Amino acid sequence: MPEGILYGVGVGPGDPELLTLKAVRTIERCAVVAAPRTRGGGMTALDIVRGAMDLGGKEILPLDFAMTRDAAARAASHRAAAALLRARLDGGRSVALLNLGDVSVYATFGHIAAILAAEGRRTAMVPGVPSFCAAAALLGESLTSGMTAPLRVVPDAVGDAGAADLSAPGTTVWMKSGRALPALLGRLSAANLSDRVSVVQNCGLPGERAHRGIPAGDIDPAYFTLVILKNPVDDGESA
Amino acid sequence: MPEGILYGVGVGPGDPELLTLKAVRTIERCAVVAAPRTRGGGMTALDIVRGAMDLGGKEILPLDFAMTRDAAARAASHRAAAALLRARLDGGRSVALLNLGDVSVYATFGHIAAILAAEGRRTAMVPGVPSFCAAAALLGESLTSGMTAPLRVVPDAVGDAGAADLSAPGTTVWMKSGRALPALLGRLSAANLSDRVSVVQNCGLPGERAHRGIPAGDIDPAYFTLVILKNPVDDGESA
Repeated sequence: MPEGILYGVGVGPGDPELLTLKAVRTIERCAVVAAPRTRGGGMTALDIVRGAMDLGGKEILPLDFAMTRDAAARAASHRAAAALLRARLDGGRSVALLNLGDVSVYATFGHIAAILAAEGRRTAMVPGVPSFCAAAALLGESLTSGMTAPLRVVPDAVGDAGAADLSAPGTTVWMKSGRALPALLGRLSAANLSDRVSVVQNCGLPGERAHRGIPAGDIDPAYFTLVILKNPVDDGESA
Repeated sequence: MPEGILYGVGVGPGDPELLTLKAVRTIERCAVVAAPRTRGGGMTALDIVRGAMDLGGKEILPLDFAMTRDAAARAASHRAAAALLRARLDGGRSVALLNLGDVSVYATFGHIAAILAAEGRRTAMVPGVPSFCAAAALLGESLTSGMTAPLRVVPDAVGDAGAADLSAPGTTVWMKSGRALPALLGRLSAANLSDRVSVVQNCGLPGERAHRGIPAGDIDPAYFTLVILKNPVDDGESA
């Protein structure tokens, strides 16, 4: 019996229409669909895929990843997930492991794939639309200014919110500002940068909100919150 | 007669399978498909879409953008393209303007959309898979290391190749290294960073090549060449 293949599939940030043709066809070919499950039982990546295609007849495999800063606990949850996946692969079944956004950008897939590849199993990646690209489209704005200034993507505002150079030319995106959000927005506001800031919550998901400028009042910290700071550049193309 | 809508559609970097469902459905709804045309007559974004769907019955509108560092010449070519698009929109036809990769990341669409939006025309954006995500998937590697270090995307290695801090934690992607490629690879090589570097050319297009490390010998400068430098981080998750 041939071994199965583990596919890491980026499903985009929320809108099922942002699945690629390749993602749909890869999932169609797999007997097993694995997806992260939160402590509350939510499986957002799976819900996105269900909005685009029928998964009838496939095994749905929930994976419980430790969401903690404890590296040992995270590594243990990766090994546990790898063991569940290995059993399917060795039984000859291919698995689509769903990832929000793209699968190469701050995704859990790389850790799982590294474990299984080291054990000789076959893995492959199907890229997806990252949340920051979808957020820019929702705002109707380019993420970048001009054609020379860099785009800086920060996975987590914790540790960066107080340290980032807010005047650097180009664009900074904080992907998961979480509990650092008030500090980050406070610093941007104190620097009078509100007109260069956009905040997008739950892009493509229930509760989606896009703000130009720093929103007044409290922001629900349970939401995926992406903060974009777009500084002007002087290369004749900042329009 | 209702006015048409200008859609900026990200088509991904090369593989027609990386079109999103939304891109396909948006293009299907448009009577006109506009795409950049190079001086040699090539229309890569259009070729990608033709690999995924039939465009029969639609007007194909080639747009000749000035590929120059002369900002005035670029702006003039944007105005000329906007005039061609405006005629279609005002005739009640919607237009899908195709962009390689994503439409918010170093794309021409923002400049065209700004001109037409200022004149009261309706525009919208459909995000796509950026080249750097597809390149990482081709390499079978995460683009990022760990969950705290930033991802830095540099549109053009000219001006950055000599200045970038090559030891900064996290990942740097130079998207279009072009004529700065020899200088950039030379500097990475001199710093003994070859084992942290990958080079991907023409991702998803004819002539696709993925190198781990700095490739020996000359590289065809006509190819889309993306250089990835992935420095280790120390957050217990760099695997």
